[in-house]
Amino acid sequence: MTIEHTVDFQPLGRRVRVAEGVSLLEAARKAGVGLNAVCGGGGSCGTCVVRVVEGEVSPANQSEEGSLSLIELTEGFRLACQVVVLGDVLVEVPARSITAPQRAQIEGRERPVDIDPSVRTFEVKPAPPSLGDLRSDERRIRETLAEEHGVMAVDFDPLVVGQISSRLRQEEWQVALFLRNGEVVGAAPLGTAPLGLAVDIGTTKVAAYLVDLDTGETLGASGEMNPQIAFGEDVMARIAHAMEGEDRQRELQKAIIDGLNEQARALCEESGRRCEEILEAVLVGNTCMHHLVLGLPVVQLGVAPYVSALSAPCDVKARDLGLGIAVGAYVHLLPNIAGFVGGDHVSMAMASGLLDGDQIALGLDIGTNTEVSLAAHGRLLSCSTASGPAFEGAHIRDGMRAAPGAIEWVRMVDGRIEYQTIDGGAPVGICGSGILDSVAELRRIGVLKENGSMAPNSHPRVRRLHDRPEFVLVPAGENGALNDIVINRKDVSEIQLAKGAIRAGVDVLLDEAGVEVDEVERVVVAGAFGTYLDVGSARAIGMFPPLPLERFDQVGNAAGIGAKLALLSRSFRHAAAEMAERVEYIELTTDARFASAYMNAMGLP
Amino acid sequence: MTIEHTVDFQPLGRRVRVAEGVSLLEAARKAGVGLNAVCGGGGSCGTCVVRVVEGEVSPANQSEEGSLSLIELTEGFRLACQVVVLGDVLVEVPARSITAPQRAQIEGRERPVDIDPSVRTFEVKPAPPSLGDLRSDERRIRETLAEEHGVMAVDFDPLVVGQISSRLRQEEWQVALFLRNGEVVGAAPLGTAPLGLAVDIGTTKVAAYLVDLDTGETLGASGEMNPQIAFGEDVMARIAHAMEGEDRQRELQKAIIDGLNEQARALCEESGRRCEEILEAVLVGNTCMHHLVLGLPVVQLGVAPYVSALSAPCDVKARDLGLGIAVGAYVHLLPNIAGFVGGDHVSMAMASGLLDGDQIALGLDIGTNTEVSLAAHGRLLSCSTASGPAFEGAHIRDGMRAAPGAIEWVRMVDGRIEYQTIDGGAPVGICGSGILDSVAELRRIGVLKENGSMAPNSHPRVRRLHDRPEFVLVPAGENGALNDIVINRKDVSEIQLAKGAIRAGVDVLLDEAGVEVDEVERVVVAGAFGTYLDVGSARAIGMFPPLPLERFDQVGNAAGIGAKLALLSRSFRHAAAEMAERVEYIELTTDARFASAYMNAMGLP
Repeated sequence: MTIEHTVDFQPLGRRVRVAEGVSLLEAARKAGVGLNAVCGGGGSCGTCVVRVVEGEVSPANQSEEGSLSLIELTEGFRLACQVVVLGDVLVEVPARSITAPQRAQIEGRERPVDIDPSVRTFEVKPAPPSLGDLRSDERRIRETLAEEHGVMAVDFDPLVVGQISSRLRQEEWQVALFLRNGEVVGAAPLGTAPLGLAVDIGTTKVAAYLVDLDTGETLGASGEMNPQIAFGEDVMARIAHAMEGEDRQRELQKAIIDGLNEQARALCEESGRRCEEILEAVLVGNTCMHHLVLGLPVVQLGVAPYVSALSAPCDVKARDLGLGIAVGAYVHLLPNIAGFVGGDHVSMAMASGLLDGDQIALGLDIGTNTEVSLAAHGRLLSCSTASGPAFEGAHIRDGMRAAPGAIEWVRMVDGRIEYQTIDGGAPVGICGSGILDSVAELRRIGVLKENGSMAPNSHPRVRRLHDRPEFVLVPAGENGALNDIVINRKDVSEIQLAKGAIRAGVDVLLDEAGVEVDEVERVVVAGAFGTYLDVGSARAIGMFPPLPLERFDQVGNAAGIGAKLALLSRSFRHAAAEMAERVEYIELTTDARFASAYMNAMGLP
Repeated sequence: MTIEHTVDFQPLGRRVRVAEGVSLLEAARKAGVGLNAVCGGGGSCGTCVVRVVEGEVSPANQSEEGSLSLIELTEGFRLACQVVVLGDVLVEVPARSITAPQRAQIEGRERPVDIDPSVRTFEVKPAPPSLGDLRSDERRIRETLAEEHGVMAVDFDPLVVGQISSRLRQEEWQVALFLRNGEVVGAAPLGTAPLGLAVDIGTTKVAAYLVDLDTGETLGASGEMNPQIAFGEDVMARIAHAMEGEDRQRELQKAIIDGLNEQARALCEESGRRCEEILEAVLVGNTCMHHLVLGLPVVQLGVAPYVSALSAPCDVKARDLGLGIAVGAYVHLLPNIAGFVGGDHVSMAMASGLLDGDQIALGLDIGTNTEVSLAAHGRLLSCSTASGPAFEGAHIRDGMRAAPGAIEWVRMVDGRIEYQTIDGGAPVGICGSGILDSVAELRRIGVLKENGSMAPNSHPRVRRLHDRPEFVLVPAGENGALNDIVINRKDVSEIQLAKGAIRAGVDVLLDEAGVEVDEVERVVVAGAFGTYLDVGSARAIGMFPPLPLERFDQVGNAAGIGAKLALLSRSFRHAAAEMAERVEYIELTTDARFASAYMNAMGLP
């Protein structure tokens, strides 16, 4: 007989019955609670921290004593992978331990484009061979393409020739051929439209789009976590992993390729298509993601002067990467600008029309590194600035990623504090946009001073902990919150550092171009955080320059949209390549202006 | 305690001690006796026939009763794989059951060529990156190639970029780059010459050459059996195997690729080099070998009208075939002319200078299929004729391949019979050149009539078996022969069919070109059998036209030499492609002239 117990995960409100002896991590998986478990449950990474509020469980073991402080252990904090259930248990899951489902960001502002994809369809109906006509299949196709379509000088992917030969015989000598820059890359029954796969490989999330290359229609889209997260949260952690050896680097490549294959498979299944019908893929990502997916060494991205191995646009056979789409399909990767300004930024800038017309326009991709571009007076300047992970909730006391329960919007009106959580549930922590709002509002109502310090007694919610003031945004119990959700001085400093770095980058580019702030006609803000942040708050704390709100343009996942456009339009690709060629990259770490710009940008106006 | 017995293999003179209960096939392997075992010892292929002369063994089982006739069984013939050793045994191994070592044929007449390989070396010394020079490695190399060598518009194999990046840093920013048609395909320390691998993939044998691409020097050569032999002896058997399913076809591709990898590895080892230094390979073979190595479907080569999938010259990345040479290396395959006239014939024709000048020249590649080309009056005609396997010893009573003990040369002078065996040992059978000589000599001395029948009482060695005359070339006991070695009427018929097919092909081409036989200025005879046959004998029996001996030219493995030339000279490749383009292929099976030409050519002049 199996003895079962109930495990109750709060604040998520998930209950599950499990057999005595299973771990809390297994119980969480069974309950559908996405706990971080970077090491896979081995007790070594310390990411699956939970608090056992009540109930009988195994005593803390050595792994836990190594990962958790004595105070944490006495408060009931444990590593879920090490705790064995021995009775009914109530478990509290801290925001920092929750992974999925994060808010996926796959939408972006679409942009009309003339459909002129790299892969085009040609229907051919060659005469079947006979004793009087012994031409090889390849020559027969070559001559039929010339006669029926006027297409001359065709190359054949040798690995596609066999497919064509079989297809011709199955389809009684009538097939659709797919040509790419004069190369035959696939064959299918008449009437089959070629598919394209556009992917924005973010460090955290991977947005994929399945596109009909003949019509330009988006057949499906999906957002998934980047499976490389198991090997490190951010770019630097991934590089560190890769530096441990070639096997480790290959592990990272395999993780993302496996993920892409899975995402492609699921998208095709939803559309009733097959991965073999995907004749072209476009991948965009930061330089590290670009290098990892191509299997290029990333070691050099981890040490000064941070030069990439490959910056030019790149076409590679999908089979060379292990991508399970059509055997003849190519993968196109947009050019990189520098070690920390990758093809995703090029994609975003192009898709959002940053270079359209003669306007003076700024483009920002906000993340752990923030890429900034400025188009002005015929010049195009770019830089990368180390804004850190604060906007992803890291290094913030109650910070968390943009997942359910995260406070994403905050207003302080007449002494009241209004807020909103993702999915509307009980608040468990604060995500980037909520922190940004909080800091802006606290400054506006005078709780924060210009230097970021907190004025004691400036608000009833300001209290002192260890003689330092902190602001209780949500007291425990309010709207189901299990704990106080607090903003302290250190949190504010993290935001000041992050936003100062971004603004300093903007200011250096403006100075380089000889442009006054108020001459900027348009500010494009892209990416997941850029979509959800409140521009007014960002402007209020000085992260964005003081420009009228209507000049700001939150374009969503413009990098992903750019990947789609690169699938559908050869001229888009050419323009992207040209942009990368002519951009002037400004290295901030050696720029004399940066340090003072950073100091100036740190305060709260 | 294990009981052991001695197994004595004759006429090879190999003895081995084996445990009771092992099979004769295992004993043969232990003794180093190369027995055919196409099915791998399953008792199904019937190729491992031996005769148990004396000693205790297991009784014949069902497999053996299915494979061997009652007469054979009563004479002691058995399948070695099915016979279990129960005591000391004396075993006789018939010539037909012996595999290796065959006479490898890798030599051919060399031909001077201007060294202008596809892969060329460029030494570059780019400035290392710094905070003031953040160009990517790829861009740095691109600009250095332009500055130092005037090489513009370079492409990079994306899978080679990583290698370059690592190499640049290991070698302190001084490396040798290998470029191929404007593509960077490899990098190595300064002073490393790129290697090339030239291979003639025969149905039976594979000749491989390791070449220094900078100097043109041949560093090593080797001849090995084609490992596909385990799946069928000739082209049709391989096609039949492939037709059983895609897995079977892949099995054939894997067999030859594994073999090539092994041969390349051994050649490199002998030269103190590494396979990663092989930057280009050229493969030539008949159309079936070409398709199998590329993974192209061969089904269509097995059914009329026998059209190939691919006839154009082909460049494919070695990695796409699983060939373990440099990651960026290409494999070049010469063009095919038709289903039964492959790139090996193009290679032979080009290497032997068949098209040089304005001469009227014939070129022959003699094998199971014989390819014939005729250059005359600005035209180039080719055909393939089904000459069958008689010259490989098949379907000949005492026929065998050109292996030790094979009678390879025969003369009948003043009633005496002179012969010579390969390696000079005891005669065990007759190989192609010996059969050809025998038939020519028997006709010359009047034993054979013009129609090929044997005149009774025409020679003391003519005897009657089952009321049919046969000629004892070597009586048992002579020079250590264990059995009579005999030529019978059926053997002569096989030779008549084979030589008639070849001559008929020649005659149809001459007729098509409007050329009289004696206008032919040069007859190039290529390939293994073509090297060892006696031209006088071949002319005497009417296989070759009646031309002065000095017009015949035995060029050796010209196909292999052509593969080497294609490695070293781009203009050779272009010329080969042009030749394949302009050749007029004559399909003999539908040509009205062929049947009568065949009938005319069958007799013995």
